[in-house]
Amino acid sequence: MSRIAVIGSGAWGTAIAASLAQRGGHSITLWSHTPAIAEAIQAAGENTVYLPGYLLPASIAATSDLAAAVEGAEIIVGVMPSSHVRTVYRQMMPYLQPGQLLISATKGIEDGSSRRMSEVIGEVLAAHTLKLQYAVLSGPSFAQEVVAGSPTALTIASADLAVAAHIQREFASPTLRLYTNDDVVGVEMGGALKNVIALATGVIAGLELGQNSAAALITRGIAEVTRLAVACGGRRETMAGLAGLGDLVLTCTGSLSRNRRVGVELGRGRALPEILAGMGGKVAEGVGTTGAALRLARQKGVEMPITEQVDAILHGGKRPLDAARDLMGRPGKEEF
Amino acid sequence: MSRIAVIGSGAWGTAIAASLAQRGGHSITLWSHTPAIAEAIQAAGENTVYLPGYLLPASIAATSDLAAAVEGAEIIVGVMPSSHVRTVYRQMMPYLQPGQLLISATKGIEDGSSRRMSEVIGEVLAAHTLKLQYAVLSGPSFAQEVVAGSPTALTIASADLAVAAHIQREFASPTLRLYTNDDVVGVEMGGALKNVIALATGVIAGLELGQNSAAALITRGIAEVTRLAVACGGRRETMAGLAGLGDLVLTCTGSLSRNRRVGVELGRGRALPEILAGMGGKVAEGVGTTGAALRLARQKGVEMPITEQVDAILHGGKRPLDAARDLMGRPGKEEF
Repeated sequence: MSRIAVIGSGAWGTAIAASLAQRGGHSITLWSHTPAIAEAIQAAGENTVYLPGYLLPASIAATSDLAAAVEGAEIIVGVMPSSHVRTVYRQMMPYLQPGQLLISATKGIEDGSSRRMSEVIGEVLAAHTLKLQYAVLSGPSFAQEVVAGSPTALTIASADLAVAAHIQREFASPTLRLYTNDDVVGVEMGGALKNVIALATGVIAGLELGQNSAAALITRGIAEVTRLAVACGGRRETMAGLAGLGDLVLTCTGSLSRNRRVGVELGRGRALPEILAGMGGKVAEGVGTTGAALRLARQKGVEMPITEQVDAILHGGKRPLDAARDLMGRPGKEEF
Repeated sequence: MSRIAVIGSGAWGTAIAASLAQRGGHSITLWSHTPAIAEAIQAAGENTVYLPGYLLPASIAATSDLAAAVEGAEIIVGVMPSSHVRTVYRQMMPYLQPGQLLISATKGIEDGSSRRMSEVIGEVLAAHTLKLQYAVLSGPSFAQEVVAGSPTALTIASADLAVAAHIQREFASPTLRLYTNDDVVGVEMGGALKNVIALATGVIAGLELGQNSAAALITRGIAEVTRLAVACGGRRETMAGLAGLGDLVLTCTGSLSRNRRVGVELGRGRALPEILAGMGGKVAEGVGTTGAALRLARQKGVEMPITEQVDAILHGGKRPLDAARDLMGRPGKEEF
């Protein structure tokens, strides 16, 4: 019986908490930044803002008290938006203790610093001279399906495979299967960068350029994100696995992808601020990750033509059709 | 101005002929096995059986006279079902001449012999001591989108890259882009094997196991077909390209995939003969390719767990839910 704290009550955090509670064997606390959400989960068993329509297990203890959530938890799963990770971990610092295990389930790169989530967390821990073991959870997983009990396969990565294997045992259930990996960089890069390609695929769909084009774009997309991940120290085979290709395919083709939907709206000609304003506080991580990825790519000397065009649409005022034309009209006659 | 003969008036053959005719610069003949189809295309500009609803360019000369189609053509594009390739090429032999260029656009492995299409063609040519240059055309391409002029990227492969580059120039248009490759084996294996994984993905959808499961299956699927392709002499990077990953993703997630649809019906509990009988003569290549691929895999000592389960459903009477359970319940705790 472990106490597990899930920090962040977005769709994915809520689904992780629900899956662990359904599994049984643990005591699950779900921390929400917003007291009203914690109260609604506690009172009605529903996250009406981020995961409406799903009855959550009554055994989840929802709270907006960070100290209460974190203190004494054996495992702490961070699922906040990437832009809040640094702040929330700083707030958690007074309550953390040696021996606790941190899992990052946030999929993004910090805008500004271009740091991966585990790097951000590592910096905050180092500033407090605290050393904790950590792991990264990623893979193809629409939250709605996980909470509904659809079979889902994820990757759990830690530099120490024994840590990953421990989490595998603690989290696994008949519907949730975890595969261990020791490539933290690859798993984090896969989870973050797929959102950029999902934005691009959405643009193609919004422009009604067809599924043939989208498939070609996805093919180039996985090649491009693999180049950057490998340049940053990730492994090629990780990018061909669940946390790379698997999550990219789901996010680029699935009906529940927020980042893809933002791309669709961009492709239809709507402006980014208007699209984001209409999302009711839900975050499309790809928007921030695009710029961060591009800065990393330039540092590492990696070509990322799709990411460049997405950035030009998001931040350079480029018309989506012009971006699509520039992308598809690229020179290069041999495939490799 | 070349004369190009397209042999086979299924959806893909018809779309290739239409794309080349729209492009201009060539004289295009489309051969149909069925006189009524050739007559309908000639009279009404529509292939009412295999590609209904699309007005075909009037410049296409449709015929059911194989000699008239083949004699004097500089380029002959074969797009017949894999089960007819050997027979049709034998019928073509009397009319073929040195200097003609053959392109195979059929996506399948010959059932029984487990031969790739270019191997089958090579055997027929050798039996007639005729030596012709050949290439293979593949990649993510729903016929309906190609005929509608949606942008499409394909791979054209020949052991002689100059041959591939020649076809690239002759076929390329503002909406059809060809990339050259010299890995004929990889391109043929990619085009054939993706249909097996599409059947499996369809089964998962028919069983309503969700998009997370499908994404995990696609990830394992590309790994498994890559193993077989590489064991047969194909290249890993080809399988990560348009003719491998690109076509697999399209066929496994797209709305127009026949093989996926057969899988969906299997997953819903319908029997294979009943499903095939309802397809109005349209071929789902994956059905024949599954057994052929499995025999190849056993010869080469390659593990293909998904292909095995698809074969057990198709030919072993296994219940789809049991196959899905056996697939997802496989041992193996590390991802690689």
